[in-house]
Amino acid sequence: MKLLRHGPQGAEKPGLLHDDGTIRDLSGIVKDIGGDVLSDAGLAHLRTVDAAALPVVAPDTRLGPCVGGTGKFICIGLNYADHAAESGMAVPSEPVIFMKATSAICGPDDDVRIPRGSVKTDWEVELAVIIGTRAKYVSEADALAHVAGYAVTNDVSERAFQAERQGQWTKGKSCDTFGPLGPWLVTRDAVANPQDLAMWLTVNGEKVQDGSTRTMVYGVAHLVSYLSQFMTLHPGDVISTGTPPGVGLGMKPPRYLKPGDVVELGIAGLGQQRQRFVADD
Amino acid sequence: MKLLRHGPQGAEKPGLLHDDGTIRDLSGIVKDIGGDVLSDAGLAHLRTVDAAALPVVAPDTRLGPCVGGTGKFICIGLNYADHAAESGMAVPSEPVIFMKATSAICGPDDDVRIPRGSVKTDWEVELAVIIGTRAKYVSEADALAHVAGYAVTNDVSERAFQAERQGQWTKGKSCDTFGPLGPWLVTRDAVANPQDLAMWLTVNGEKVQDGSTRTMVYGVAHLVSYLSQFMTLHPGDVISTGTPPGVGLGMKPPRYLKPGDVVELGIAGLGQQRQRFVADD
Repeated sequence: MKLLRHGPQGAEKPGLLHDDGTIRDLSGIVKDIGGDVLSDAGLAHLRTVDAAALPVVAPDTRLGPCVGGTGKFICIGLNYADHAAESGMAVPSEPVIFMKATSAICGPDDDVRIPRGSVKTDWEVELAVIIGTRAKYVSEADALAHVAGYAVTNDVSERAFQAERQGQWTKGKSCDTFGPLGPWLVTRDAVANPQDLAMWLTVNGEKVQDGSTRTMVYGVAHLVSYLSQFMTLHPGDVISTGTPPGVGLGMKPPRYLKPGDVVELGIAGLGQQRQRFVADD
Repeated sequence: MKLLRHGPQGAEKPGLLHDDGTIRDLSGIVKDIGGDVLSDAGLAHLRTVDAAALPVVAPDTRLGPCVGGTGKFICIGLNYADHAAESGMAVPSEPVIFMKATSAICGPDDDVRIPRGSVKTDWEVELAVIIGTRAKYVSEADALAHVAGYAVTNDVSERAFQAERQGQWTKGKSCDTFGPLGPWLVTRDAVANPQDLAMWLTVNGEKVQDGSTRTMVYGVAHLVSYLSQFMTLHPGDVISTGTPPGVGLGMKPPRYLKPGDVVELGIAGLGQQRQRFVADD
Protein backbone atom coordinates (compact mmCIF):
# COMPACT_ATOMS: atom_id res chain seq x y z
CA MET A 1 0.00 0.00 0.00
CA LYS A 2 0.94 3.60 -0.60
CA LEU A 3 -0.41 5.60 2.33
CA LEU A 4 -0.45 9.38 2.40
CA ARG A 5 -1.89 12.45 4.05
CA HIS A 6 -3.72 15.13 2.08
CA GLY A 7 -5.07 18.59 2.76
CA PRO A 8 -3.87 21.87 4.26
CA GLN A 9 -0.86 22.01 6.57
CA GLY A 10 -1.76 20.93 10.08
CA ALA A 11 -5.15 19.62 8.99
CA GLU A 12 -4.09 16.68 6.83
CA LYS A 13 -6.43 13.73 6.39
CA PRO A 14 -5.41 10.10 5.82
CA GLY A 15 -5.51 8.67 2.33
CA LEU A 16 -3.99 6.18 -0.04
CA LEU A 17 -2.86 6.03 -3.63
CA HIS A 18 -5.21 3.68 -5.45
CA ASP A 19 -3.99 1.38 -8.23
CA ASP A 20 -5.84 3.55 -10.77
CA GLY A 21 -3.62 6.51 -9.83
CA THR A 22 -6.26 8.44 -7.90
CA ILE A 23 -5.90 9.52 -4.32
CA ARG A 24 -8.60 8.09 -2.08
CA ASP A 25 -9.68 9.46 1.28
CA LEU A 26 -9.37 7.21 4.33
CA SER A 27 -11.00 9.63 6.81
CA GLY A 28 -13.96 7.32 7.18
CA ILE A 29 -11.71 4.40 8.12
CA VAL A 30 -8.88 5.78 10.28
CA LYS A 31 -8.16 9.08 11.98
CA ASP A 32 -4.61 9.51 10.71
CA ILE A 33 -1.67 7.67 9.19
CA GLY A 34 0.10 7.24 12.52
CA GLY A 35 0.06 5.46 15.88
CA ASP A 36 -1.68 2.07 15.99
CA VAL A 37 -2.63 2.35 12.32
CA LEU A 38 1.05 1.64 11.57
CA SER A 39 1.12 -1.71 13.37
CA ASP A 40 0.89 -4.95 11.39
CA ALA A 41 -2.71 -5.34 12.57
CA GLY A 42 -3.54 -1.74 11.67
CA LEU A 43 -2.07 -2.09 8.19
CA ALA A 44 -3.75 -5.48 7.71
CA HIS A 45 -7.06 -3.80 8.48
CA LEU A 46 -6.42 -1.15 5.84
CA ARG A 47 -5.68 -3.88 3.28
CA THR A 48 -9.23 -5.18 3.75
CA VAL A 49 -10.67 -1.83 2.66
CA ASP A 50 -12.13 -1.64 -0.86
CA ALA A 51 -10.11 1.31 -2.16
CA ALA A 52 -12.29 1.64 -5.27
CA ALA A 53 -15.23 2.48 -3.01
CA LEU A 54 -13.42 5.28 -1.15
CA PRO A 55 -14.04 8.95 -1.99
CA VAL A 56 -11.71 10.36 -4.66
CA VAL A 57 -9.56 13.31 -3.57
CA ALA A 58 -9.10 16.15 -6.08
CA PRO A 59 -5.83 15.58 -7.97
CA ASP A 60 -4.42 19.04 -7.19
CA THR A 61 -4.80 18.57 -3.43
CA ARG A 62 -1.68 19.27 -1.40
CA LEU A 63 0.07 16.26 0.07
CA GLY A 64 1.33 16.58 3.62
CA PRO A 65 4.04 14.52 5.28
CA CYS A 66 3.04 10.86 4.81
CA VAL A 67 2.94 10.12 8.54
CA GLY A 68 1.49 12.03 11.49
CA GLY A 69 2.40 12.14 15.16
CA THR A 70 6.12 11.73 14.62
CA GLY A 71 7.85 11.96 17.99
CA LYS A 72 11.43 11.59 16.77
CA PHE A 73 13.17 12.35 13.50
CA ILE A 74 16.50 10.57 13.81
CA CYS A 75 19.11 10.99 11.10
CA ILE A 76 22.16 8.89 10.32
CA GLY A 77 25.33 10.68 9.23
CA LEU A 78 27.98 9.54 6.73
CA ASN A 79 26.19 6.26 6.00
CA TYR A 80 27.12 5.72 2.35
CA ALA A 81 30.52 4.25 1.56
CA ASP A 82 30.85 6.21 -1.70
CA HIS A 83 29.78 9.45 0.00
CA ALA A 84 32.40 8.91 2.74
CA ALA A 85 35.04 8.23 0.06
CA GLU A 86 33.99 11.35 -1.87
CA SER A 87 34.30 13.41 1.33
CA GLY A 88 37.71 11.93 2.09
CA MET A 89 36.35 10.68 5.41
CA ALA A 90 36.56 7.25 6.99
CA VAL A 91 33.41 5.20 7.34
CA PRO A 92 32.38 5.53 11.01
CA SER A 93 32.94 2.44 13.16
CA GLU A 94 29.31 2.62 14.29
CA PRO A 95 26.38 4.77 13.14
CA VAL A 96 26.58 8.53 13.67
CA ILE A 97 23.18 9.78 14.80
CA PHE A 98 21.67 13.21 15.20
CA MET A 99 18.19 14.65 15.55
CA LYS A 100 16.19 16.84 13.25
CA ALA A 101 13.40 18.80 14.94
CA THR A 102 9.99 17.30 14.13
CA SER A 103 8.82 20.87 13.51
CA ALA A 104 10.95 20.74 10.34
CA ILE A 105 8.71 18.09 8.76
CA CYS A 106 6.64 19.24 5.78
CA GLY A 107 4.92 17.89 2.69
CA PRO A 108 6.92 16.46 -0.22
CA ASP A 109 6.15 19.35 -2.58
CA ASP A 110 5.94 22.22 -0.12
CA ASP A 111 8.18 25.22 -0.63
CA VAL A 112 11.38 24.91 1.37
CA ARG A 113 12.16 28.16 3.19
CA ILE A 114 15.79 29.19 3.20
CA PRO A 115 16.27 30.67 6.68
CA ARG A 116 17.38 34.22 7.26
CA GLY A 117 21.15 34.46 7.22
CA SER A 118 21.61 31.19 5.35
CA VAL A 119 24.35 31.04 2.75
CA LYS A 120 24.89 27.26 2.57
CA THR A 121 21.53 25.52 2.18
CA ASP A 122 22.13 22.06 0.74
CA TRP A 123 20.19 18.94 -0.33
CA GLU A 124 20.35 15.25 0.64
CA VAL A 125 18.06 12.59 -0.85
CA GLU A 126 17.52 9.89 1.77
CA LEU A 127 15.55 6.73 2.43
CA ALA A 128 13.29 7.31 5.43
CA VAL A 129 12.21 4.38 7.59
CA ILE A 130 8.93 4.76 9.45
CA ILE A 131 8.52 2.79 12.66
CA GLY A 132 5.33 0.75 13.00
CA THR A 133 5.56 -0.76 16.46
CA ARG A 134 7.46 0.01 19.66
CA ALA A 135 11.07 -1.18 19.42
CA LYS A 136 13.46 -1.45 22.36
CA TYR A 137 16.56 -3.64 22.55
CA VAL A 138 15.48 -5.47 19.39
CA SER A 139 17.88 -7.74 17.52
CA GLU A 140 18.86 -7.11 13.92
CA ALA A 141 16.91 -10.28 12.99
CA ASP A 142 13.71 -8.90 14.51
CA ALA A 143 14.20 -5.27 13.53
CA LEU A 144 12.34 -5.10 10.21
CA ALA A 145 9.19 -6.44 11.86
CA HIS A 146 9.01 -3.07 13.66
CA VAL A 147 9.09 -1.09 10.41
CA ALA A 148 5.77 0.11 8.96
CA GLY A 149 7.29 1.20 5.67
CA TYR A 150 9.52 3.55 3.75
CA ALA A 151 9.40 7.01 2.24
CA VAL A 152 11.50 9.59 0.44
CA THR A 153 12.94 12.45 2.44
CA ASN A 154 15.16 15.41 1.68
CA ASP A 155 17.44 15.99 4.68
CA VAL A 156 17.82 19.70 3.86
CA SER A 157 20.89 21.06 5.65
CA GLU A 158 22.38 24.47 6.26
CA ARG A 159 26.09 23.71 6.27
CA ALA A 160 27.24 26.89 8.00
CA PHE A 161 24.63 26.48 10.75
CA GLN A 162 25.57 22.79 10.97
CA ALA A 163 29.34 23.06 11.18
CA GLU A 164 30.49 26.64 11.66
CA ARG A 165 28.21 27.86 14.45
CA GLN A 166 29.54 25.97 17.51
CA GLY A 167 28.90 22.33 18.06
CA GLN A 168 26.33 19.68 17.13
CA TRP A 169 24.73 19.39 13.71
CA THR A 170 21.11 19.77 14.81
CA LYS A 171 21.31 23.56 14.38
CA GLY A 172 21.69 23.24 10.62
CA LYS A 173 19.22 20.39 10.23
CA SER A 174 16.14 21.58 12.10
CA CYS A 175 15.02 24.72 10.28
CA ASP A 176 11.32 24.87 9.39
CA THR A 177 10.52 22.93 6.16
CA PHE A 178 13.93 21.18 6.20
CA GLY A 179 12.21 17.78 6.34
CA PRO A 180 9.95 17.10 3.32
CA LEU A 181 8.57 13.59 3.84
CA GLY A 182 6.61 11.57 1.28
CA PRO A 183 4.71 11.53 -1.04
CA TRP A 184 3.81 8.09 0.31
CA LEU A 185 4.54 5.74 3.13
CA VAL A 186 5.07 2.57 1.11
CA THR A 187 4.37 -0.34 3.40
CA ARG A 188 7.16 -2.81 4.15
CA ASP A 189 5.53 -5.68 2.23
CA ALA A 190 5.63 -3.59 -0.96
CA VAL A 191 9.39 -2.99 -0.83
CA ALA A 192 11.20 -6.17 -1.90
CA ASN A 193 14.62 -5.07 -0.68
CA PRO A 194 15.22 -1.73 1.04
CA GLN A 195 18.94 -2.22 0.38
CA ASP A 196 18.56 -2.16 -3.40
CA LEU A 197 16.70 1.03 -4.28
CA ALA A 198 17.90 3.54 -6.85
CA MET A 199 17.77 7.14 -5.64
CA TRP A 200 18.36 10.46 -7.36
CA LEU A 201 18.13 14.21 -6.93
CA THR A 202 18.17 17.07 -9.43
CA VAL A 203 18.70 20.81 -8.99
CA ASN A 204 16.98 22.85 -11.69
CA GLY A 205 16.79 19.72 -13.79
CA GLU A 206 20.45 18.79 -13.49
CA LYS A 207 21.10 15.43 -11.87
CA VAL A 208 23.44 15.85 -8.91
CA GLN A 209 22.75 12.72 -6.87
CA ASP A 210 22.45 9.32 -8.52
CA GLY A 211 22.95 6.50 -6.06
CA SER A 212 21.49 3.39 -4.56
CA THR A 213 20.74 2.15 -1.07
CA ARG A 214 23.09 -0.73 -2.00
CA THR A 215 26.06 1.37 -0.86
CA MET A 216 24.56 2.12 2.55
CA VAL A 217 27.10 1.20 5.24
CA TYR A 218 24.66 0.33 8.02
CA GLY A 219 21.45 -1.10 6.58
CA VAL A 220 17.92 -0.55 7.82
CA ALA A 221 17.76 -3.65 10.04
CA HIS A 222 21.04 -2.74 11.69
CA LEU A 223 19.97 0.87 12.25
CA VAL A 224 16.63 -0.01 13.85
CA SER A 225 18.31 -2.53 16.13
CA TYR A 226 21.17 -0.15 16.92
CA LEU A 227 18.97 2.84 17.75
CA SER A 228 16.71 0.66 19.90
CA GLN A 229 19.69 -0.01 22.21
CA PHE A 230 19.77 3.70 23.07
CA MET A 231 16.11 4.68 23.13
CA THR A 232 12.66 3.27 22.51
CA LEU A 233 11.41 3.78 18.99
CA HIS A 234 7.69 4.51 18.80
CA PRO A 235 5.13 4.23 15.99
CA GLY A 236 5.52 7.16 13.62
CA ASP A 237 9.17 7.79 14.50
CA VAL A 238 11.24 8.44 11.39
CA ILE A 239 14.81 7.33 10.73
CA SER A 240 16.51 9.04 7.82
CA THR A 241 19.30 6.73 6.75
CA GLY A 242 21.91 9.01 5.18
CA THR A 243 22.65 10.29 1.72
CA PRO A 244 24.68 9.02 -1.25
CA PRO A 245 27.31 11.20 -3.00
CA GLY A 246 26.49 14.42 -4.78
CA VAL A 247 25.59 17.00 -2.16
CA GLY A 248 26.47 20.66 -2.72
CA LEU A 249 29.02 20.67 0.09
CA GLY A 250 31.07 18.02 -1.75
CA MET A 251 31.27 19.94 -5.05
CA LYS A 252 34.38 21.84 -6.08
CA PRO A 253 33.62 24.63 -5.55
CA PRO A 254 30.70 23.92 -3.19
CA ARG A 255 27.27 24.80 -4.57
CA TYR A 256 24.32 25.91 -2.47
CA LEU A 257 20.64 26.62 -3.05
CA LYS A 258 19.19 30.07 -3.58
CA PRO A 259 15.62 31.36 -3.84
CA GLY A 260 14.02 30.19 -7.06
CA ASP A 261 15.93 26.92 -7.29
CA VAL A 262 13.85 23.79 -7.80
CA VAL A 263 14.92 20.47 -6.31
CA GLU A 264 13.38 17.19 -7.41
CA LEU A 265 14.22 13.84 -5.87
CA GLY A 266 12.99 10.30 -5.78
CA ILE A 267 13.61 6.71 -4.79
CA ALA A 268 12.57 3.73 -6.94
CA GLY A 269 9.09 2.61 -5.94
CA LEU A 270 8.68 5.30 -3.30
CA GLY A 271 7.67 8.21 -5.52
CA GLN A 272 9.21 11.63 -5.90
CA GLN A 273 9.25 15.11 -4.42
CA ARG A 274 9.54 18.59 -5.90
CA GLN A 275 10.46 21.64 -3.84
CA ARG A 276 10.78 25.25 -4.79
CA PHE A 277 13.31 27.00 -2.54
CA VAL A 278 12.20 30.42 -1.32
CA ALA A 279 13.54 33.05 1.07
CA ASP A 280 11.97 32.73 4.50
CA ASP A 281 9.84 35.71 5.41
CA MET B 1 0.85 29.39 39.46
CA LYS B 2 2.44 25.99 39.84
CA LEU B 3 0.95 23.75 37.17
CA LEU B 4 1.52 20.01 37.05
CA ARG B 5 0.32 16.74 35.62
CA HIS B 6 -0.73 13.84 37.84
CA GLY B 7 -1.60 10.20 37.31
CA PRO B 8 -0.17 7.13 35.60
CA GLN B 9 2.43 7.43 32.85
CA GLY B 10 0.82 8.29 29.52
CA ALA B 11 -2.53 9.08 31.15
CA GLU B 12 -1.61 12.18 33.15
CA LYS B 13 -4.28 14.73 34.01
CA PRO B 14 -3.76 18.47 34.46
CA GLY B 15 -3.54 19.92 37.93
CA LEU B 16 -2.06 22.64 40.05
CA LEU B 17 -0.41 23.03 43.41
CA HIS B 18 -2.77 25.00 45.63
CA ASP B 19 -1.52 27.51 48.20
CA ASP B 20 -2.56 25.10 50.97
CA GLY B 21 -0.07 22.52 49.65
CA THR B 22 -2.65 20.17 48.15
CA ILE B 23 -2.71 19.12 44.54
CA ARG B 24 -5.93 20.08 42.78
CA ASP B 25 -7.30 18.51 39.64
CA LEU B 26 -7.84 20.73 36.59
CA SER B 27 -9.44 18.06 34.36
CA GLY B 28 -12.75 19.88 34.50
CA ILE B 29 -11.16 23.09 33.25
CA VAL B 30 -8.54 22.15 30.64
CA LYS B 31 -7.58 18.97 28.81
CA ASP B 32 -3.85 19.12 29.50
CA ILE B 33 -1.03 21.43 30.56
CA GLY B 34 0.08 22.08 27.00
CA GLY B 35 -0.77 23.79 23.71
CA ASP B 36 -3.00 26.86 23.92
CA VAL B 37 -3.30 26.49 27.70
CA LEU B 38 0.30 27.79 27.86
CA SER B 39 -0.46 31.08 26.12
CA ASP B 40 -0.88 34.27 28.14
CA ALA B 41 -4.63 34.06 27.56
CA GLY B 42 -4.75 30.39 28.53
CA LEU B 43 -2.79 31.02 31.72
CA ALA B 44 -4.90 34.10 32.52
CA HIS B 45 -8.00 31.92 32.27
CA LEU B 46 -6.51 29.42 34.74
CA ARG B 47 -5.82 32.27 37.15
CA THR B 48 -9.55 33.01 37.32
CA VAL B 49 -10.27 29.49 38.57
CA ASP B 50 -11.10 29.13 42.27
CA ALA B 51 -8.46 26.55 43.19
CA ALA B 52 -10.03 25.91 46.59
CA ALA B 53 -13.12 24.60 44.83
CA LEU B 54 -11.22 22.09 42.66
CA PRO B 55 -11.10 18.37 43.56
CA VAL B 56 -8.18 17.38 45.80
CA VAL B 57 -5.80 14.79 44.34
CA ALA B 58 -4.50 12.08 46.71
CA PRO B 59 -1.13 13.20 48.07
CA ASP B 60 0.68 9.99 47.03
CA THR B 61 -0.36 10.35 43.39
CA ARG B 62 2.47 10.10 40.87
CA LEU B 63 3.47 13.34 39.18
CA GLY B 64 4.17 13.16 35.46
CA PRO B 65 6.23 15.61 33.44
CA CYS B 66 4.75 19.05 34.08
CA VAL B 67 3.95 19.75 30.43
CA GLY B 68 2.36 17.58 27.73
CA GLY B 69 2.68 17.55 23.97
CA THR B 70 6.34 18.57 23.92
CA GLY B 71 7.52 18.56 20.30
CA LYS B 72 11.12 19.51 20.95
CA PHE B 73 13.47 19.07 23.89
CA ILE B 74 16.39 21.34 23.07
CA CYS B 75 19.44 21.39 25.33
CA ILE B 76 22.19 23.94 25.65
CA GLY B 77 25.73 22.69 26.19
CA LEU B 78 28.53 24.27 28.23
CA ASN B 79 26.39 27.23 29.29
CA TYR B 80 27.81 27.97 32.75
CA ALA B 81 31.03 29.94 33.00
CA ASP B 82 32.16 28.11 36.14
CA HIS B 83 31.38 24.72 34.58
CA ALA B 84 33.41 25.62 31.49
CA ALA B 85 36.29 26.75 33.70
CA GLU B 86 36.06 23.52 35.74
CA SER B 87 36.19 21.52 32.52
CA GLY B 88 39.16 23.53 31.25
CA MET B 89 37.10 24.49 28.19
CA ALA B 90 36.50 27.87 26.64
CA VAL B 91 33.05 29.40 26.83
CA PRO B 92 31.52 28.87 23.37
CA SER B 93 31.23 31.98 21.20
CA GLU B 94 27.53 31.21 20.64
CA PRO B 95 25.21 28.64 22.23
CA VAL B 96 25.92 24.95 21.62
CA ILE B 97 22.62 23.17 21.05
CA PHE B 98 21.62 19.53 20.86
CA MET B 99 18.39 17.57 21.03
CA LYS B 100 17.16 15.13 23.59
CA ALA B 101 14.48 12.72 22.34
CA THR B 102 11.06 13.68 23.70
CA SER B 103 10.58 9.97 24.47
CA ALA B 104 13.14 10.48 27.26
CA ILE B 105 10.80 12.77 29.21
CA CYS B 106 9.44 11.35 32.47
CA GLY B 107 8.03 12.45 35.79
CA PRO B 108 10.21 14.22 38.37
CA ASP B 109 10.30 11.28 40.80
CA ASP B 110 10.15 8.37 38.36
CA ASP B 111 12.89 5.76 38.48
CA VAL B 112 15.65 6.54 35.99
CA ARG B 113 16.61 3.43 34.04
CA ILE B 114 20.33 2.98 33.42
CA PRO B 115 20.46 1.55 29.90
CA ARG B 116 22.02 -1.79 29.09
CA GLY B 117 25.74 -1.44 28.55
CA SER B 118 25.96 1.90 30.35
CA VAL B 119 29.04 2.52 32.48
CA LYS B 120 28.99 6.32 32.61
CA THR B 121 25.50 7.54 33.56
CA ASP B 122 25.77 11.06 34.94
CA TRP B 123 23.55 13.84 36.31
CA GLU B 124 22.97 17.51 35.38
CA VAL B 125 20.57 19.80 37.26
CA GLU B 126 19.19 22.35 34.78
CA LEU B 127 16.68 25.14 34.51
CA ALA B 128 14.09 24.18 31.88
CA VAL B 129 12.24 26.87 29.97
CA ILE B 130 8.79 25.97 28.66
CA ILE B 131 7.58 27.80 25.58
CA GLY B 132 4.09 29.30 25.78
CA THR B 133 3.53 30.78 22.33
CA ARG B 134 4.99 30.29 18.87
CA ALA B 135 8.35 32.03 18.55
CA LYS B 136 10.16 32.64 15.28
CA TYR B 137 12.81 35.30 14.62
CA VAL B 138 11.99 36.98 17.93
CA SER B 139 14.26 39.60 19.42
CA GLU B 140 15.89 39.20 22.80
CA ALA B 141 13.65 42.02 24.08
CA ASP B 142 10.50 40.14 23.06
CA ALA B 143 11.71 36.65 23.91
CA LEU B 144 10.45 36.23 27.47
CA ALA B 145 6.90 37.04 26.37
CA HIS B 146 6.97 33.66 24.58
CA VAL B 147 7.87 31.75 27.76
CA ALA B 148 5.06 30.07 29.71
CA GLY B 149 7.24 29.25 32.68
CA TYR B 150 10.09 27.33 34.21
CA ALA B 151 10.76 23.90 35.66
CA VAL B 152 13.50 21.71 37.07
CA THR B 153 15.03 19.08 34.83
CA ASN B 154 17.79 16.52 35.20
CA ASP B 155 19.63 16.25 31.88
CA VAL B 156 20.71 12.68 32.57
CA SER B 157 23.62 11.79 30.31
CA GLU B 158 25.53 8.62 29.42
CA ARG B 159 29.02 9.98 28.81
CA ALA B 160 30.36 6.98 26.89
CA PHE B 161 27.32 6.95 24.59
CA GLN B 162 27.62 10.74 24.28
CA ALA B 163 31.30 11.07 23.48
CA GLU B 164 32.91 7.69 22.76
CA ARG B 165 30.45 6.11 20.35
CA GLN B 166 30.94 8.14 17.15
CA GLY B 167 29.68 11.65 16.76
CA GLN B 168 26.89 13.84 18.11
CA TRP B 169 25.81 13.93 21.73
CA THR B 170 22.16 12.96 21.22
CA LYS B 171 23.03 9.25 21.58
CA GLY B 172 23.95 9.68 25.23
CA LYS B 173 21.16 12.12 26.04
CA SER B 174 18.04 10.44 24.67
CA CYS B 175 17.73 7.19 26.62
CA ASP B 176 14.29 6.48 28.08
CA THR B 177 13.74 8.30 31.42
CA PHE B 178 16.78 10.57 30.86
CA GLY B 179 14.55 13.65 31.04
CA PRO B 180 12.72 14.01 34.38
CA LEU B 181 10.73 17.26 34.13
CA GLY B 182 8.92 18.96 36.99
CA PRO B 183 7.42 18.75 39.58
CA TRP B 184 5.80 21.99 38.43
CA LEU B 185 5.68 24.39 35.58
CA VAL B 186 6.02 27.63 37.52
CA THR B 187 4.51 30.37 35.42
CA ARG B 188 6.72 33.22 34.26
CA ASP B 189 4.99 35.82 36.44
CA ALA B 190 5.92 33.82 39.56
CA VAL B 191 9.66 33.83 38.80
CA ALA B 192 11.08 37.25 39.62
CA ASN B 193 14.40 36.70 37.86
CA PRO B 194 15.25 33.47 36.03
CA GLN B 195 18.91 34.54 36.10
CA ASP B 196 19.12 34.47 39.89
CA LEU B 197 17.96 31.05 41.01
CA ALA B 198 19.94 28.79 43.33
CA MET B 199 20.19 25.18 42.11
CA TRP B 200 21.57 22.02 43.67
CA LEU B 201 21.86 18.29 43.24
CA THR B 202 22.76 15.50 45.68
CA VAL B 203 23.79 11.88 45.09
CA ASN B 204 22.84 9.61 48.00
CA GLY B 205 22.50 12.72 50.15
CA GLU B 206 25.90 14.21 49.28
CA LYS B 207 25.75 17.60 47.61
CA VAL B 208 27.63 17.52 44.31
CA GLN B 209 26.13 20.49 42.45
CA ASP B 210 25.56 23.81 44.17
CA GLY B 211 25.20 26.65 41.71
CA SER B 212 23.04 29.47 40.48
CA THR B 213 21.57 30.53 37.18
CA ARG B 214 23.55 33.75 37.78
CA THR B 215 26.59 32.13 36.15
CA MET B 216 24.70 31.12 33.00
CA VAL B 217 26.61 32.39 29.96
CA TYR B 218 23.65 32.84 27.62
CA GLY B 219 20.53 33.76 29.56
CA VAL B 220 16.97 32.64 28.90
CA ALA B 221 15.98 35.64 26.77
CA HIS B 222 19.06 35.25 24.60
CA LEU B 223 18.50 31.50 24.18
CA VAL B 224 14.85 31.82 23.15
CA SER B 225 15.73 34.54 20.66
CA TYR B 226 18.77 32.63 19.39
CA LEU B 227 16.95 29.33 18.87
CA SER B 228 14.07 31.08 17.15
CA GLN B 229 16.48 32.19 14.41
CA PHE B 230 17.03 28.52 13.49
CA MET B 231 13.60 27.00 14.01
CA THR B 232 10.11 27.86 15.17
CA LEU B 233 9.53 27.21 18.86
CA HIS B 234 6.05 25.90 19.62
CA PRO B 235 3.96 25.81 22.82
CA GLY B 236 5.19 23.00 25.04
CA ASP B 237 8.71 22.93 23.60
CA VAL B 238 11.32 22.67 26.33
CA ILE B 239 14.73 24.33 26.43
CA SER B 240 17.12 22.95 29.01
CA THR B 241 19.63 25.67 29.64
CA GLY B 242 22.79 23.85 30.75
CA THR B 243 24.27 22.75 34.03
CA PRO B 244 26.52 24.37 36.65
CA PRO B 245 29.69 22.64 37.93
CA GLY B 246 29.70 19.35 39.78
CA VAL B 247 28.79 16.63 37.29
CA GLY B 248 30.32 13.16 37.66
CA LEU B 249 32.37 13.52 34.48
CA GLY B 250 34.22 16.47 36.02
CA MET B 251 35.26 14.68 39.22
CA LYS B 252 38.75 13.31 39.71
CA PRO B 253 38.37 10.42 39.27
CA PRO B 254 35.03 10.64 37.42
CA ARG B 255 32.05 9.24 39.30
CA TYR B 256 29.02 7.65 37.70
CA LEU B 257 25.64 6.37 38.83
CA LYS B 258 24.85 2.73 39.56
CA PRO B 259 21.61 0.92 40.36
CA GLY B 260 20.38 1.86 43.82
CA ASP B 261 21.77 5.39 43.80
CA VAL B 262 19.34 8.16 44.66
CA VAL B 263 19.62 11.60 43.05
CA GLU B 264 17.77 14.61 44.43
CA LEU B 265 17.84 18.03 42.82
CA GLY B 266 16.06 21.33 42.96
CA ILE B 267 15.93 24.96 41.94
CA ALA B 268 14.80 27.76 44.26
CA GLY B 269 11.06 28.31 43.85
CA LEU B 270 10.67 25.56 41.26
CA GLY B 271 10.50 22.54 43.57
CA GLN B 272 12.61 19.43 43.68
CA GLN B 273 12.95 15.97 42.15
CA ARG B 274 14.03 12.60 43.54
CA GLN B 275 15.06 9.72 41.32
CA ARG B 276 16.11 6.21 42.16
CA PHE B 277 18.47 4.84 39.51
CA VAL B 278 17.73 1.27 38.45
CA ALA B 279 19.07 -1.14 35.84
CA ASP B 280 16.94 -1.13 32.71
CA ASP B 281 15.19 -4.41 32.13
